[in-house]
Amino acid sequence: MTNLAERVAAGDRRALGRLLSQIEREDPEAQKILAGLNIRPDRALVIGITGASGTGKSTLVNALTRVLRKGTTDEPPQTVGILAVDPSSPFSGGAILGDRIRMRDLAGDDGVFIRSMASRGHLGGLSRATDCAVRALDAAGFEIIIIETVGAGQDEVEIARQADTVIVLETPGLGDDIQAIKAGILEIADVLAVNKADLPGAEAAAASLEAMLNLEKKGEDGWRTPIVSTVAATGEGMQALAAAVFRHRDYLKRSGEWARREQERAGRNLEERLRERLFDRWKASAGENALADAVRKVASRECSMEEALERLLLKEDAAAKSKG
Amino acid sequence: MTNLAERVAAGDRRALGRLLSQIEREDPEAQKILAGLNIRPDRALVIGITGASGTGKSTLVNALTRVLRKGTTDEPPQTVGILAVDPSSPFSGGAILGDRIRMRDLAGDDGVFIRSMASRGHLGGLSRATDCAVRALDAAGFEIIIIETVGAGQDEVEIARQADTVIVLETPGLGDDIQAIKAGILEIADVLAVNKADLPGAEAAAASLEAMLNLEKKGEDGWRTPIVSTVAATGEGMQALAAAVFRHRDYLKRSGEWARREQERAGRNLEERLRERLFDRWKASAGENALADAVRKVASRECSMEEALERLLLKEDAAAKSKG
Repeated sequence: MTNLAERVAAGDRRALGRLLSQIEREDPEAQKILAGLNIRPDRALVIGITGASGTGKSTLVNALTRVLRKGTTDEPPQTVGILAVDPSSPFSGGAILGDRIRMRDLAGDDGVFIRSMASRGHLGGLSRATDCAVRALDAAGFEIIIIETVGAGQDEVEIARQADTVIVLETPGLGDDIQAIKAGILEIADVLAVNKADLPGAEAAAASLEAMLNLEKKGEDGWRTPIVSTVAATGEGMQALAAAVFRHRDYLKRSGEWARREQERAGRNLEERLRERLFDRWKASAGENALADAVRKVASRECSMEEALERLLLKEDAAAKSKG
Repeated sequence: MTNLAERVAAGDRRALGRLLSQIEREDPEAQKILAGLNIRPDRALVIGITGASGTGKSTLVNALTRVLRKGTTDEPPQTVGILAVDPSSPFSGGAILGDRIRMRDLAGDDGVFIRSMASRGHLGGLSRATDCAVRALDAAGFEIIIIETVGAGQDEVEIARQADTVIVLETPGLGDDIQAIKAGILEIADVLAVNKADLPGAEAAAASLEAMLNLEKKGEDGWRTPIVSTVAATGEGMQALAAAVFRHRDYLKRSGEWARREQERAGRNLEERLRERLFDRWKASAGENALADAVRKVASRECSMEEALERLLLKEDAAAKSKG
């Protein structure tokens, strides 16, 4: 067990893969291994990438990864861990088609690790699993972690909040110029990429995004969301995108946001996990059927919701006393 | 306290108003009063009405209420409690402009009670408050309760799930025929109303809704979502809408869905409340700062999330022992 934790820290890819599988299926063992992982004094930069389907996210993630692996004019080459998270899909990790194509594309590079994670039916679980997976990749020493999410709904916003720097992807010509920008998505963008910028309408799309940014982000705090035009398929604009990401990282560190976002994230994740564990503990102590029995009584109008709740809360106390 | 509960049950509108205010501001007193309320052997029919802004929801709720108050050919007059719920607004209840206009419109009718409820920043709270308010109106004897929600996002879907019968409102000519129908909204519709059916494009809108329903709801369970054309401003189609609602109620009762939905709702609400109370209890026992201290340690990388979590869980045990 500590053995697996040590192997993850030492960069053993099979051990990392096993840990991520345990995390994905919510195996309690994973919690013990995560508790035993080393904590690096510094942490990875976590990039979230989101956008509607058809915007070319996977291609862009690959192209960006290649640039990060080579290094830019200002930055040395970095190791990259990629988590492709799909809140809408019940398919599970590591073996979906897109992944295999990607793995071939980035194959043979020990500085890259790719992993898919899929929903197990509840978003809370996926967002928790994403947090754990990020920490596993961090402990394994990856310098940059990319979380790629499918779609741009509320679920994706939730997952993108696990990132330091959020890139929102747009493309011209998806019907309306700005149709694919959903409410709330622009707000979370630290960097906007207009991908497929060789298509007609790219300039108009960039201009309307610019206008929307000016409307929505007026009075922001020292960071002006840049709009970068890219053609991920040919690699065009990828250096500029990487540069924008690093500029944002520098801004985060300079302004104190780097620590603030980590604090916020730790707070959200820890509280979430605590609530879950308290409920699990209650269930273990009160008995599996206590809640179902109470629900039946409330639904059949034998007692009020409030009475049922008070009785359920007393149940654990009684159980704890009779044990103690 | 029991006094207020008794007054609510006796139909005292001021007492009901006070209880709803307590519920809205999450006053713990409200829980005691709710626990003391009488439980009617039968319960009210809860209608949820949702749709984008501009679809004429408030006008339709008023027009529908007038029909329900008069009775239809098959149904006697019914008393109606209206909850206007706005997840996006921080404004609080009872005094917003729309309400006052409405109150004038339905004024002097003791069989109608109208109340606004606004968000206090967290959706969980609003959905909980809606549940409590529905039960208060139920105990006060209203035969039909209408929950009107603004917009059609995830928040509204959450609130609409508190209803037995969900009416989704559409209008022709909001740009695209079907633009205003967001993913997930059609799924929750038990009745579709195409309001402002006197505008151009109404037939096309109804036809494309029909087509979407056929796509999405194939293989449904004995209920075919009807599409009703209405002009709420003139009252046109309101009898047909009321008839559709009652047909759905009869279907629910006949098929066992009436009890199943109540069971599901009670389960969701009771579990939610239990989780909240367990967390509150933990906070009271472990101390307000315990969580914040742990978050600081995790964020500054002094310890792992998992270690912090285990220590937090031990805190309550220790506190309980030293008290016991």
